[in-house]
Amino acid sequence: MHSTMQDVDLLVSDLFLHGLRTHPESSVLHYQGGEVRRVSFREFGTTVTSLAAGLHRLGVSEDDVVATLCWNSPAHLAAYFAVPGMGAVLHTLNLRLHDDQIVFIANHAADKVILVDADLVPQLQRLIDRLPTVEHVIIAGEAEADLTVPAGVQVHRLDDVLAPDTDFRWRTLDERSAAALCYTTGTTGDPKGVAYSHRSIYLHSLQISTGSAFAFSDADRVLPIVPMFHANAWGWPHAAWTSGADIILNDRYLQIEHLTRIITELQPTAAAAVPTLWTGLDEYARTQAVDFTGLRLAVSGGSPLSAALVRSMATHHGVALTQGWGMTETSPLLTFSRPPRNTPDAEAAQWASLTGRIVPGVQARIVSETGDELPWDGESIGEVQLRGATIAGRYFRTEAPDTFDDGWLRTGDLGVLHEGGWIQLKDRLKDGIKSGGEWISTVELENALLEHEAVIEVAVIGVPDPKWEERPFVCVTLKPGAAVTALELLAFLDGKVARWWLPERWSFVDTLPKTSVGKLDKKVLRRRYDAGELAVDDLRITRTGDSVLPPSR
Amino acid sequence: MHSTMQDVDLLVSDLFLHGLRTHPESSVLHYQGGEVRRVSFREFGTTVTSLAAGLHRLGVSEDDVVATLCWNSPAHLAAYFAVPGMGAVLHTLNLRLHDDQIVFIANHAADKVILVDADLVPQLQRLIDRLPTVEHVIIAGEAEADLTVPAGVQVHRLDDVLAPDTDFRWRTLDERSAAALCYTTGTTGDPKGVAYSHRSIYLHSLQISTGSAFAFSDADRVLPIVPMFHANAWGWPHAAWTSGADIILNDRYLQIEHLTRIITELQPTAAAAVPTLWTGLDEYARTQAVDFTGLRLAVSGGSPLSAALVRSMATHHGVALTQGWGMTETSPLLTFSRPPRNTPDAEAAQWASLTGRIVPGVQARIVSETGDELPWDGESIGEVQLRGATIAGRYFRTEAPDTFDDGWLRTGDLGVLHEGGWIQLKDRLKDGIKSGGEWISTVELENALLEHEAVIEVAVIGVPDPKWEERPFVCVTLKPGAAVTALELLAFLDGKVARWWLPERWSFVDTLPKTSVGKLDKKVLRRRYDAGELAVDDLRITRTGDSVLPPSR
Repeated sequence: MHSTMQDVDLLVSDLFLHGLRTHPESSVLHYQGGEVRRVSFREFGTTVTSLAAGLHRLGVSEDDVVATLCWNSPAHLAAYFAVPGMGAVLHTLNLRLHDDQIVFIANHAADKVILVDADLVPQLQRLIDRLPTVEHVIIAGEAEADLTVPAGVQVHRLDDVLAPDTDFRWRTLDERSAAALCYTTGTTGDPKGVAYSHRSIYLHSLQISTGSAFAFSDADRVLPIVPMFHANAWGWPHAAWTSGADIILNDRYLQIEHLTRIITELQPTAAAAVPTLWTGLDEYARTQAVDFTGLRLAVSGGSPLSAALVRSMATHHGVALTQGWGMTETSPLLTFSRPPRNTPDAEAAQWASLTGRIVPGVQARIVSETGDELPWDGESIGEVQLRGATIAGRYFRTEAPDTFDDGWLRTGDLGVLHEGGWIQLKDRLKDGIKSGGEWISTVELENALLEHEAVIEVAVIGVPDPKWEERPFVCVTLKPGAAVTALELLAFLDGKVARWWLPERWSFVDTLPKTSVGKLDKKVLRRRYDAGELAVDDLRITRTGDSVLPPSR
Repeated sequence: MHSTMQDVDLLVSDLFLHGLRTHPESSVLHYQGGEVRRVSFREFGTTVTSLAAGLHRLGVSEDDVVATLCWNSPAHLAAYFAVPGMGAVLHTLNLRLHDDQIVFIANHAADKVILVDADLVPQLQRLIDRLPTVEHVIIAGEAEADLTVPAGVQVHRLDDVLAPDTDFRWRTLDERSAAALCYTTGTTGDPKGVAYSHRSIYLHSLQISTGSAFAFSDADRVLPIVPMFHANAWGWPHAAWTSGADIILNDRYLQIEHLTRIITELQPTAAAAVPTLWTGLDEYARTQAVDFTGLRLAVSGGSPLSAALVRSMATHHGVALTQGWGMTETSPLLTFSRPPRNTPDAEAAQWASLTGRIVPGVQARIVSETGDELPWDGESIGEVQLRGATIAGRYFRTEAPDTFDDGWLRTGDLGVLHEGGWIQLKDRLKDGIKSGGEWISTVELENALLEHEAVIEVAVIGVPDPKWEERPFVCVTLKPGAAVTALELLAFLDGKVARWWLPERWSFVDTLPKTSVGKLDKKVLRRRYDAGELAVDDLRITRTGDSVLPPSR
């Protein structure tokens, strides 16, 4: 039976118009390294409309791809709404990638226009000759040097493109059409694109604005430190604008000194960043005055959040750090570690070390290697798989059948589901150690060892074992001057993890191998272990009953 | 360009499963006139699934209509999720209507099953012989007397229908298919049905759970006093369940004594009711101890909220009453009077007397009699029209072209839009007074006069005027013993409304005509005026410059 409701599509332009019309006095605050430029939503809305009209005049039409090479800048935010609003597709290029990767991605997406922040013109200069689909470059701000472009490419100043047009009408579109493209760079293979739909961006904005997630409202002032080329800055700009929350754009100023100044002077109520930045803020604020009092919501994401950091932020600065988990493929928010009802303050921190509770709109399941759905018992480890209108079902112009299972997205993460929908990630599937038929979590072993005062960094990988198939091997770097033995670290671990997890094989090194973005490179570590390049201390633990016997050395 | 997101429908069953899986320990609290029965979401979820399986076993299939004649009872809440979840359509019968209306509505919808609370069996007994489409009656609870039914109708006890079935699978459906039917009873013509879709219920649940509206979370315990046969109890049960908020069901206990007991003993964080009930609570709590401290959200809706009541609730009980506006046709929430950012407590009350700010997902416009869209200037009065995925675009099996304008719902309400998306309703379109080409609001005149201590009730209608086409006519009832003249009331009004609104024609009566549901019946009043049945005092006001001259009598 058909319903009698209006058939109205869920469009990014309606998110834009809602924020503009219901909160014209809210602010976009552009931090420029010291000076802050405040623009009302009303004024900013005119820029957005003028940009859409201007792109239309340039010849951009439906399905054309308009790329950005931008910081968290006003031009970037304007493009967030103007490009999908006029029916084109926004493609946020990750300026941190290697030139070759950016070239691959821009050509794969067939970018027609590139909007670039003026200070990134030198970076674009290195790329532009290799981008044959680009017809227009739009420079936001004053570039220090001219951009030299191949024949056929037109270069514009943003101010010249803006076309004030009070009669401009936003496009009527199918909500399932693409609104924004974002590429994910795995450790293997070419980058893969996710094309968010108008529908998925609209739904994600509502989902993350609910009381179960961030409860954004016009009482908020949000600081999405996370770059706008990372999964739409976790969806914060869209949701904040729609809710009438002030939006702070920190441009290229990601240094701790700038962030603490923004926090103290502009008093954001909500901020989102990777753990590294929170660690930096935590340490800096122990010696310098930083006023965190306005911050009701501090979200960490992108990498696992350590319990130690949560405790430190709470103890030293009164900030209740929470964890959000997501992926480029998932819009991105999947889980959020909002403490359950009636959680005493003293216990709030412990929830942040879980990955979080599934947010409304997301469906999750844990699947065993044999394809069986596992119970939500907090113990059964399997791959986390996801379903929902904000979750990718395929990649853009790339076949990747292994990533999808009967309509569900395979995350490649091993984890458990606790009763109540709390997900706890244990490992990347490829990093997990299957020992005697059961999973050992390298992440948990690493986190437990990081609690030891002598340890700086640690990597755990699975290595072949004649009896158990695989066993954990620990590779540690110690603080300068620290002297601690593998046996002492083993004793430290005992009681913190399951006894059968206790690792036999240890190695102490000066540095651990890292990837180009600074993550531990376990692939290299595995190769070095296999090649016998590492000095391995084998404790040959004997387990009897419920005690670990001192290893015989 | 197609997006790469999963094509997952927005279904009521997914709202149900999300609440069940992420908050199994939340509670459904059934108030039974004293005793409170607590059931966990986990346990309640089993009832929902068993009801769906049981209905399937009874032969209910997709598109069949399952009606409820129920209070805010557990059986009603179970049907909210079980019926749409299995693909059938839930039809919430308004038990307050006249028998003939219920019969009309049930037959119009072709109800196949009726789920009835046991104490309402006598009411159903009066109707059942006139409901030829009904095949099954399911009685929830112990009825005092047996139900006598026509041949072909089967009567079941709810407990016998429940079919525990752990393998039960929720239906895969098109999100645009009908999930629930609700009829609206206008003052003219037959009742008209609105068929909410799975999509509209899902979106409405997200919309009202955002920080811009009610920000429901598992920290909440909601008390939707508004009956579940009124526009899905304003959407609260769906949204609360999905958010993991406890749900208090007050069954048939709508008396102030019961409500205050629930508020004091169960400490709801959020409650929704019509102004009459809030007035009752306000007055009762001045002499009896009521503990409102848990109530963070008190929403009034269904009729305009007076500033006097808002002030009184704030002053006497520390409750910040807010206003929600909606219609059966609109899921229902359209606007909410959440005070804007940085509103001082002392000024919070004034916002509640506006109708509210448009909530995310709803689009509004003000349209003049000539079809022009009017500016959001707080002054231009026109009909409020609405668009959105949660707004009806037609009626169920009824042609009503006058209600829709180019895809927009015509509300039949006159109002203004203030900058910032605040709607202020002025009048029903049919009640508005067009005087010298401009609108005079009867609602504002009435509210201003109600502030006078001698006035009990007042109705303002438009009457023919040789010069101005229409002028307001005021009909007042005074408190026993009060002696106040039309001239004194006119002086009281002066300065409170636009000078040219000041009414010339007055009448004092013992009682005002009312409709069957207790609303002022302006149609009858108009007829009496036209027939010359009322003694009219004509003050013949002279206006010169900016002063009102004392009328010459």
